[in-house]
Amino acid sequence: MKKEIKFSLVYRDMWQSSGKYQPRVDQLVQIAPLIIEMGCFSRVETNGGAFEQVNLLYGENPNKAVRAFTKPFNDAGIQTHMLDRGLNALRMYPVPADVRKLMYKVKHAQGVDITRIFCGLNDVRNIIPSIQYAKAAGMIPQATLCITFSPVHTVEYYANIADQLIEAGAPEICLKDMAGVGRPVFLGKLTKAIKDKHPEVIIQYHGHSGPGLSMASILEVCQNGADVIDVAIEPISWGKVHPDVISVQAMLKDAGFKVPEINMSAYMKARAKTQEFIDDFLGYFMNPGNKLMSSLLLTSGLPGGMMGSMMADLEGVHSGINLMLKNQGKPELSIDDLLVKLFEEVQYVWPMVGYPPLVTPFSQYVKNIALMNILTEVRGEPKFSMMDKHIWGMILGESGKLPGKLDPQIIALAKEKGYEFTDKNPQDNYPDELDKYRKEMDENGWEYGEDDEELFELAMHDRQYRDYKSGVAKERFLTDLAKAKEESMAEKGYTAEDILAIKRAKYEPVTSEVKGQVIWEIDVDSPSMAPAVGKHFSPDDIFCYITTSWGEHTPVKANFDGKIIEVIAKQGDKINKGEPLAYIERTKE
Amino acid sequence: MKKEIKFSLVYRDMWQSSGKYQPRVDQLVQIAPLIIEMGCFSRVETNGGAFEQVNLLYGENPNKAVRAFTKPFNDAGIQTHMLDRGLNALRMYPVPADVRKLMYKVKHAQGVDITRIFCGLNDVRNIIPSIQYAKAAGMIPQATLCITFSPVHTVEYYANIADQLIEAGAPEICLKDMAGVGRPVFLGKLTKAIKDKHPEVIIQYHGHSGPGLSMASILEVCQNGADVIDVAIEPISWGKVHPDVISVQAMLKDAGFKVPEINMSAYMKARAKTQEFIDDFLGYFMNPGNKLMSSLLLTSGLPGGMMGSMMADLEGVHSGINLMLKNQGKPELSIDDLLVKLFEEVQYVWPMVGYPPLVTPFSQYVKNIALMNILTEVRGEPKFSMMDKHIWGMILGESGKLPGKLDPQIIALAKEKGYEFTDKNPQDNYPDELDKYRKEMDENGWEYGEDDEELFELAMHDRQYRDYKSGVAKERFLTDLAKAKEESMAEKGYTAEDILAIKRAKYEPVTSEVKGQVIWEIDVDSPSMAPAVGKHFSPDDIFCYITTSWGEHTPVKANFDGKIIEVIAKQGDKINKGEPLAYIERTKE
Repeated sequence: MKKEIKFSLVYRDMWQSSGKYQPRVDQLVQIAPLIIEMGCFSRVETNGGAFEQVNLLYGENPNKAVRAFTKPFNDAGIQTHMLDRGLNALRMYPVPADVRKLMYKVKHAQGVDITRIFCGLNDVRNIIPSIQYAKAAGMIPQATLCITFSPVHTVEYYANIADQLIEAGAPEICLKDMAGVGRPVFLGKLTKAIKDKHPEVIIQYHGHSGPGLSMASILEVCQNGADVIDVAIEPISWGKVHPDVISVQAMLKDAGFKVPEINMSAYMKARAKTQEFIDDFLGYFMNPGNKLMSSLLLTSGLPGGMMGSMMADLEGVHSGINLMLKNQGKPELSIDDLLVKLFEEVQYVWPMVGYPPLVTPFSQYVKNIALMNILTEVRGEPKFSMMDKHIWGMILGESGKLPGKLDPQIIALAKEKGYEFTDKNPQDNYPDELDKYRKEMDENGWEYGEDDEELFELAMHDRQYRDYKSGVAKERFLTDLAKAKEESMAEKGYTAEDILAIKRAKYEPVTSEVKGQVIWEIDVDSPSMAPAVGKHFSPDDIFCYITTSWGEHTPVKANFDGKIIEVIAKQGDKINKGEPLAYIERTKE
Repeated sequence: MKKEIKFSLVYRDMWQSSGKYQPRVDQLVQIAPLIIEMGCFSRVETNGGAFEQVNLLYGENPNKAVRAFTKPFNDAGIQTHMLDRGLNALRMYPVPADVRKLMYKVKHAQGVDITRIFCGLNDVRNIIPSIQYAKAAGMIPQATLCITFSPVHTVEYYANIADQLIEAGAPEICLKDMAGVGRPVFLGKLTKAIKDKHPEVIIQYHGHSGPGLSMASILEVCQNGADVIDVAIEPISWGKVHPDVISVQAMLKDAGFKVPEINMSAYMKARAKTQEFIDDFLGYFMNPGNKLMSSLLLTSGLPGGMMGSMMADLEGVHSGINLMLKNQGKPELSIDDLLVKLFEEVQYVWPMVGYPPLVTPFSQYVKNIALMNILTEVRGEPKFSMMDKHIWGMILGESGKLPGKLDPQIIALAKEKGYEFTDKNPQDNYPDELDKYRKEMDENGWEYGEDDEELFELAMHDRQYRDYKSGVAKERFLTDLAKAKEESMAEKGYTAEDILAIKRAKYEPVTSEVKGQVIWEIDVDSPSMAPAVGKHFSPDDIFCYITTSWGEHTPVKANFDGKIIEVIAKQGDKINKGEPLAYIERTKE
């Protein structure tokens, strides 16, 4: 019998990998039936950290969005899944245990079936409690291995973590290949190692297509026992996002797997609908670079999403570095030289700080150490002398256990600075907080919401929740949107004519009430001349004359109080009734 | 011992898949040393049909370009290869046998080591003579299987063709996956079938990344015995082009193959140099859509390069179809509906016309039949009623043998029209022509060139060669380039400021020789006024006065004879020495 492979549409991550925002709830309820109609998805990723925060950011209630988006899938028997960051739950810094527990209750009540729990360091202490909380709340905990490529990240290393997570109760394991750097054959071996020992455990592979390995990885994991593959659909599949379901299905079908058929008519409808969302407002916040793949991502192992900010960093320091080099009589560096230098420095630094998986925030930390090292080196200062407290926190063990050994140089530096290493469970630093937030809600007269979901939201994202409640978030988003629209117009190839038309739209036209020839001044001695741009007119001032076909000189009044901004008609031009002769900027009242 | 995999940089095809032109000879000699310095390429694709024609198109001599580009690789011991179309050699329609023979002599003399010979129908009669001609001329003939995906294109089908080509003397086989639709496991099986029977034959895989299967295909063919993999480099790897060598190398290294290391510093230099070519002029003729992948390419099996023209076709017929549907009271179709309909029609038509591989020109033929069928159907006319003589030529067997069986409906239609089927060797229709071209050269006093390469060029591309000789080609190209540059400026998001700066660059600035305040007229009665745009000045006319800090009114002369185009300084503005006050358009002399 053919081995069956199921597909999960990671609709949330497709957006997160493409730009800043997620579709609004009114959009999500439009796309859901089309996703169901495609007929090829057993699972859909509906929500997660960025999803909820982004809803708050544009002043919407994420609880309503999650409920509305999961419902059609729940009704259709399609499993919904979310992404959570273990200790950090749905945010970027640690969350107290009571809030973590409440999260799973709330999300289960909201219709989310599975939660994918990860820790950026793969520290099981940050994952295992979530497995237990999720189970207690009735959710399926999918424990995660964050895939990176280093000498310490061996098949044995990962298989050992998987053993611990499965022993702690995880019925599913996700291979989260967030930078797409996992090597295909390696991933196949890892899948086999887990499946051989735990044949009952479901393995779901999640890979980004940025450096181009993901399709080969999908084939290898399937040939070695994987059960579910995360996929995307057009118009935001491929690039630095995920492979498209069409190609994954075709490849696996030929390879002898049992895979569902795709309703292509529904696919095309979902594609057009998703494009509609992009055109509506989401596109203003999408980086077109995310549509492009780049193999350079492999040389540093850094996630594709970081390339943009990294290039900006490099451009920021480029001229400064060259100035210093020039003063030292050394050859200057091009931006490309600098990029290669940075990648080489990442390769140097990464082992020294114990190979943290290159996922947020650790990828940023490693990149920052490398960048600072390049700067300090040029200045003739020692390397590793510019690390901030977050980086030191990672090194000292505050976020969890680093996978590799720290370099003696780093350990010596920590001692020199009087820093203490810790192996304390990171959660222990964050006492329960729900009571504090209950009090805040009571004082404000805010409802805890259905299944305490509003209480949860405040406790998880307190600052953003308050801004959402006060209306500040919505206001800020609308300003942001207006600005983005304007910038987009300037950037996206408006012609001079378009820009002129937009500019003119702000001013008042001076028009003629008769058809005839334009005469600027009635003066027989000197040549007639149009009024200068900037000349002031009052409403009754005569702007020019029109000589009609019957020889009459009809005066044209300015009609507005203001300055001439542009003169269109030339002396002697034949013009029609109503045609603009010039534009006036009205005097502000 | 680890199995070794070699890499070939298909520098020619990278460009052909990206846009209209190829780099000029002066650019090729700049990139060659960097390609060598990368240290990872055993082979480089230097030339082929599009390469030579494009040189003629912009008025350059392709013979000089090929010699100059192959030399550094010859010297470095890197094998060069070209692409030829068998019966069609370097053009789109059949070539007499004497010209085909001469081609291999010329290309061998020009430093090309290997020729990749293909026929769009995989008809061995169109390939085998070229194998023999190439061998006789001292070249290595690499016989090609054009990969497509259909029920008749089985492993057995292809392996049988490979047997015939190898028996005819081909020491190498290329799997040319020009649309990237070959399924990875299928390609692995095909590789194994050939290698098991002919272990001494070298297998080179060439796959486009458009629909996303190519990396998995590369892994599968390598695991089954392939020897050489075609790759690209940034900035034109991925998209609808080819996988990047960085990712291919990393994947295969992890998979246990012996692969060369990449000199990344040389890679970055080659990347920057290639970008320089794009910025110079090639970019004006590149379609940005080629940077994007699309899985929709799989649903029709059509090559990625056709998507653009296909969408244009659809937009062309869209409103007409909807008008007819509306008149018939039927629901209208969106462009997406129409695209799905076209893909479905391709799937219907393709088997009926005997599954020609979907490569130029057969892919166009099949697409055209499908499109015409949609049109005739809407009109209530019978399908297949609008096929032109080229399409009928393919059906009747004039280009070679079709791989599948024709549908009885098509056979009946041919009989109805009185058409004759043929199994004659296509070459037999094209008698030798070299003497004719020798005569033309003699009459014009043109040299046959080193190794008869000019004679060959005329015989291969007679019309383009004459235009190259007369200088018409160069002129046409320069006009084309100027137009493309202008359009690109208007399209590519120039801001109003940029456009103004470009506009200003055409005019002469009026500048002050002293620092001070601008005074337009020295007049105590009426307010001072800037001269109107369009006002004429002679060089000695006073344009304005600058009041210096010591109270002196210094006159500023216009210095040019012409009209004021733009006035920048306002009355009372403080300006510095040399700052432009206005711009004058000089009177044309």
